[in-house]
Amino acid sequence: MSLINENFIKIPSSYLFSEIARRVNQLQQEQPDAAIIRMGIGDVSLPLPEASVEAMLRATEEQRHRETFRGYGPEQGYDFLRKAICENDYHTRGIQLEMDEVFVSDGSKSDTGNIGDIFSTANKVAITDPGYPVYVDTNAMAGRAGEPTETGTWSNLVYLKANESNGFVPALPTEKVDLIYLCYPNNPTGTTLTRDQLKKWVDYAREHKSILLFDAAYEAFITEPDVPHSIYEIEGAREVAIEFRSFSKTAGFTGTRCAYTIVPRNLMAYTKNGDAIALNRLWNRRHTTKFNGTSYIVQRAAEATYSPEGKAQVRAMINYYMENARIIREGLSKAGYTIYGGINAPYIWAKAPQGMSSWNYFDYLLKEKKLVTTPGAGFGASGEGFVRFSAFGQREDTLEAMKRME
Amino acid sequence: MSLINENFIKIPSSYLFSEIARRVNQLQQEQPDAAIIRMGIGDVSLPLPEASVEAMLRATEEQRHRETFRGYGPEQGYDFLRKAICENDYHTRGIQLEMDEVFVSDGSKSDTGNIGDIFSTANKVAITDPGYPVYVDTNAMAGRAGEPTETGTWSNLVYLKANESNGFVPALPTEKVDLIYLCYPNNPTGTTLTRDQLKKWVDYAREHKSILLFDAAYEAFITEPDVPHSIYEIEGAREVAIEFRSFSKTAGFTGTRCAYTIVPRNLMAYTKNGDAIALNRLWNRRHTTKFNGTSYIVQRAAEATYSPEGKAQVRAMINYYMENARIIREGLSKAGYTIYGGINAPYIWAKAPQGMSSWNYFDYLLKEKKLVTTPGAGFGASGEGFVRFSAFGQREDTLEAMKRME
Repeated sequence: MSLINENFIKIPSSYLFSEIARRVNQLQQEQPDAAIIRMGIGDVSLPLPEASVEAMLRATEEQRHRETFRGYGPEQGYDFLRKAICENDYHTRGIQLEMDEVFVSDGSKSDTGNIGDIFSTANKVAITDPGYPVYVDTNAMAGRAGEPTETGTWSNLVYLKANESNGFVPALPTEKVDLIYLCYPNNPTGTTLTRDQLKKWVDYAREHKSILLFDAAYEAFITEPDVPHSIYEIEGAREVAIEFRSFSKTAGFTGTRCAYTIVPRNLMAYTKNGDAIALNRLWNRRHTTKFNGTSYIVQRAAEATYSPEGKAQVRAMINYYMENARIIREGLSKAGYTIYGGINAPYIWAKAPQGMSSWNYFDYLLKEKKLVTTPGAGFGASGEGFVRFSAFGQREDTLEAMKRME
Repeated sequence: MSLINENFIKIPSSYLFSEIARRVNQLQQEQPDAAIIRMGIGDVSLPLPEASVEAMLRATEEQRHRETFRGYGPEQGYDFLRKAICENDYHTRGIQLEMDEVFVSDGSKSDTGNIGDIFSTANKVAITDPGYPVYVDTNAMAGRAGEPTETGTWSNLVYLKANESNGFVPALPTEKVDLIYLCYPNNPTGTTLTRDQLKKWVDYAREHKSILLFDAAYEAFITEPDVPHSIYEIEGAREVAIEFRSFSKTAGFTGTRCAYTIVPRNLMAYTKNGDAIALNRLWNRRHTTKFNGTSYIVQRAAEATYSPEGKAQVRAMINYYMENARIIREGLSKAGYTIYGGINAPYIWAKAPQGMSSWNYFDYLLKEKKLVTTPGAGFGASGEGFVRFSAFGQREDTLEAMKRME
């Protein structure tokens, strides 16, 4: 008799953003003429950079002809892209990185979900609360989360609370943890850690032989100088951290799909007997066995974001979104809301008025203002009482949304 | 202390095709002028169908403009593609299938590897021997394979031997198994099962509440009428089978990346207590949590293979490769080799002469004939003494290869 992985029936059957979509669809059916503005899921609204479009057109033409056609590529990504990543995202910041430490993929959702494959289910996992639901759900699927509790948490996860009282800077865990998910600039709160604050985590990991799973999907939105773009800017991080990066938000690749993961060669985890094993080799085995490479044309599109034109186009997109973020910050502040984030990240974390719950406030904004946000509670218990506004919309929608919030 | 998944250190560090690439590179360095012909990995050599190229160019143009830009799509794939799949690959064969039973992905290597996530590690797994290495490796990673033995097998896997003595039709297992990987038309042997032979497996699965994981990546190459294209042609299969399909070999998408997996709504597996759980819901949760959809432009390229022009172009490609297969069959037969396959599949399974081992014969063909094949032993113990010839090369290379084999 075939047995299911019973961890799957412990987790809620629907993903956060599916539930939001369901409620939005319902409103749309009830009020077909409602001018709904979407500031929820965090999808981008500007088209692909011209440089990427041109590169994809060229690559597609190559696929038309026998002489230039490309079949299977290296599962880890083409050298042209891995090299561009090393040079532009790391060497320019003084971080040493070799091509074989870069694994190109179809997205950070896949990578942050799949990375668990190479780790024992016996590891104690810590996640920031609130946090990206994929960290929790994928650990629950693997059996590392334990059992769901009545309050919506999991019995075996350690929650690193980030809230108003600690200025969204989570304290180091009091119990020993082995795998630590950190996302900075943070999704959903839009807050960051300074170099010194991040260094504490690197030091913790070095002391306890823990691994930091550092999700830097929003690094391109950093505007302040003391905020690290890569965890490898912190001394010793190469020995304890895996870093996830994505072209999705940076260059509008949410529907085009490209990301990458850094697994340094000297990053070790351990057997039960205490033998150190290089994770680069393990992830390479996973990546080459359960993945067959990112589409060639997409890799060319990603490479083009590093050309001089591509860089300028990407910068202009990010500036556009960060101007939206400024408008949202200003609009919500003027309207009397308590807000966080939006300076080094495209997300604004807004406190629901009068102690309303996240979902109630989400429903209120949807029904009364026709605005789609993301309820903070969907990101974890510490997100209760907040909603997330995304700055990825079009300018006119952002302005209109703030008019409605006045 | 972070612990690794120790199953990873039990498996050989290199994937079969990486080892082949290493040996080929070595020869190339020693003899830079050697005219090497690659009939190994099974990568295609013809460019993408024109219809797919045109569709990608159009979709890329859409991504250039704000009004037509597409960001995140449905993780399960766009309706336009799921609908085309249902109508063209299933309804035309009298198989009922709904869109929500189709999950579009970036490749069957990902899908056949990731499908294990939704199953308990306690399931007893059977795989055909020889077979696609991903089935074995991914079950080893998950801990279902047990321990490696001295003969290269795994202690906890059940091997369904397909060899000359049983005409490459594996017998039903004598011990009870829960998950059964079947690949037909078969990789690597190129052999098939008739309807009656496949029905025995469906009946077995129904009787034992097992699940068939049916890899139909090569169905488009079937030329004989009694060979089922889909397992769902067999009565009752919807209750016991998951089917994997790919555009890689069918339409030259090896570097473009698109595939799909069918999980029927009435397909059940069980909790330890014997409760039936719909696998469609579980796979949907997995797919939406650890994957973020296939690139939009790639889905448009896949859709185009179902247009009238696309169908004709795909058919022409398949005919080209199957003519190669005929040439290889004829060439090897004339040269006195014992061969199998190549009639309903693009692979020819050739017996090494004089009882040579697979790897020895592989090395012989590489050094003496400058031909790259795939050693049968790389697909499992029962592949020993054989090599696989791929028909995916260019015509002139295929003819030249057969000249060298005379």
